[in-house]
Amino acid sequence: MISFELKTGSQQALIDVTQQAQRAVGQSGVEAGVCTLYVPHTTAALTVNEVADPAVREDVLEALRRLVPADLGYHHLEGNAQAHVQAALVGGSVQLPLEAGQLCLGTWQAIFFCEFDGPRTRQVWLSVVPGA
Amino acid sequence: MISFELKTGSQQALIDVTQQAQRAVGQSGVEAGVCTLYVPHTTAALTVNEVADPAVREDVLEALRRLVPADLGYHHLEGNAQAHVQAALVGGSVQLPLEAGQLCLGTWQAIFFCEFDGPRTRQVWLSVVPGA
Amino acid sequence: MISFELKTGSQQALIDVTQQAQRAVGQSGVEAGVCTLYVPHTTAALTVNEVADPAVREDVLEALRRLVPADLGYHHLEGNAQAHVQAALVGGSVQLPLEAGQLCLGTWQAIFFCEFDGPRTRQVWLSVVPGA
Repeated sequence: MISFELKTGSQQALIDVTQQAQRAVGQSGVEAGVCTLYVPHTTAALTVNEVADPAVREDVLEALRRLVPADLGYHHLEGNAQAHVQAALVGGSVQLPLEAGQLCLGTWQAIFFCEFDGPRTRQVWLSVVPGA
Repeated sequence: MISFELKTGSQQALIDVTQQAQRAVGQSGVEAGVCTLYVPHTTAALTVNEVADPAVREDVLEALRRLVPADLGYHHLEGNAQAHVQAALVGGSVQLPLEAGQLCLGTWQAIFFCEFDGPRTRQVWLSVVPGA
Repeated sequence: MISFELKTGSQQALIDVTQQAQRAVGQSGVEAGVCTLYVPHTTAALTVNEVADPAVREDVLEALRRLVPADLGYHHLEGNAQAHVQAALVGGSVQLPLEAGQLCLGTWQAIFFCEFDGPRTRQVWLSVVPGA
C-alpha cells in the first residue's frame, strides 16, 4: 500500500488529486491493471468528475448540501452528521484502469478528494494490482 | 484494458450491458479474480440492480431526477449539470467477482450503463485482475 | 471467491460485517493487495463509515429514507422500490487495501452491510487479489 497526504483548506471542497495519485502509481512499478484509491476517513470521499470547468465541482457540492442539510436534528452530536451522510452517498473509494504505468482517465476527468468536514490533514491510500 | 462501445438512444436511460461485459471478460482469458468496469465520461455512470422488472430502472431514473432536478440555477452553463451530479451520486465504476471465466451476479442482477446526458456514443473500459 | 452469510433482523439496518470480512480474507491466504466485497442482492448495499457512535448509522438510514420515501407512486409493484433506489445510491460493493493479511481501515471505520428490505438471509461475496 502506498499513501499520500493532503491538507484541505475549507469546510467542504472537491480537490483534484490526480497528480498525487499518478505519482503514487509510478512508485508501485505496476504497468497494467487496476488502481484502487481509498480514504481512511468517515467524513470524506473520492469521486471522478469533470475538471475543465470548476463550476461542476461547485454544483456537486451545492447539490450534496441541498440533499443533506447541515442541521436536521441528527442523532450524532459531533456536528458533522451531514459529512458522514454525504460520504455514504459519494463513496470512499474509486477504481481506475492502469495502462503503461498511467492511470486511464477520460478526456474531461480528474480524481477528486471530497472534503466534507474540513479543513483537515487527510490521507489517501492506494493499492495497485497487476492485470489485463 | 479492454473496451466496448454503446450508443444510447435517449436523454436518460439505464441500459443492460451485462452481455458486452461478459464478452470482454472472455477476451481477457482470466478465469478467477475481479472485473472492474469504468466509464471515461463525466455525465454517465455504472450500477448493478434488478433486471427482471424494467419498472425498477424507471424508478431509479425518476428518483434521480427528483433528487437532482434538471434546472436549479446551476453554475455549470452547458445545460448538463444535472447529469454531472447524478454521475457523482451513482458512481462511475462497478466491481464484480469472476469465477470460471464468468462474471458473478446475483439471481436478479444485471450491470447497467446509466446515461444521464444522451443520446451519445459511449465507451466502457474493463480491467480484469486474477485473484482468489 | 469466498462468501459469508448473515441474517438481518429488521427492515432497514446497517450491520457491521468487518469481522466476517476479515475472517474470509484470512481464508484467501493473500497478504497484500485489494479485497472486493460484493452483495448479490438488489435491495441491499455495502458502505464504510464510522463505527464508534451508532448514531451515525441511524443518521445515514434516516437520511436515505428522507431522500427516498417508502411510498412515492413507484412503478415497481413489489413494495420495495425504495430499497432498489437506496441500493443504487449507496452501491453494492466496497474495496479495501490489504496489508499483512489484514483489511486496512481508518481508525473510526467499519464495513457495514446495508439492509434496505429485510429481514432476510443475505450473502456477501469476497474476491481478494494480490498486489502492491
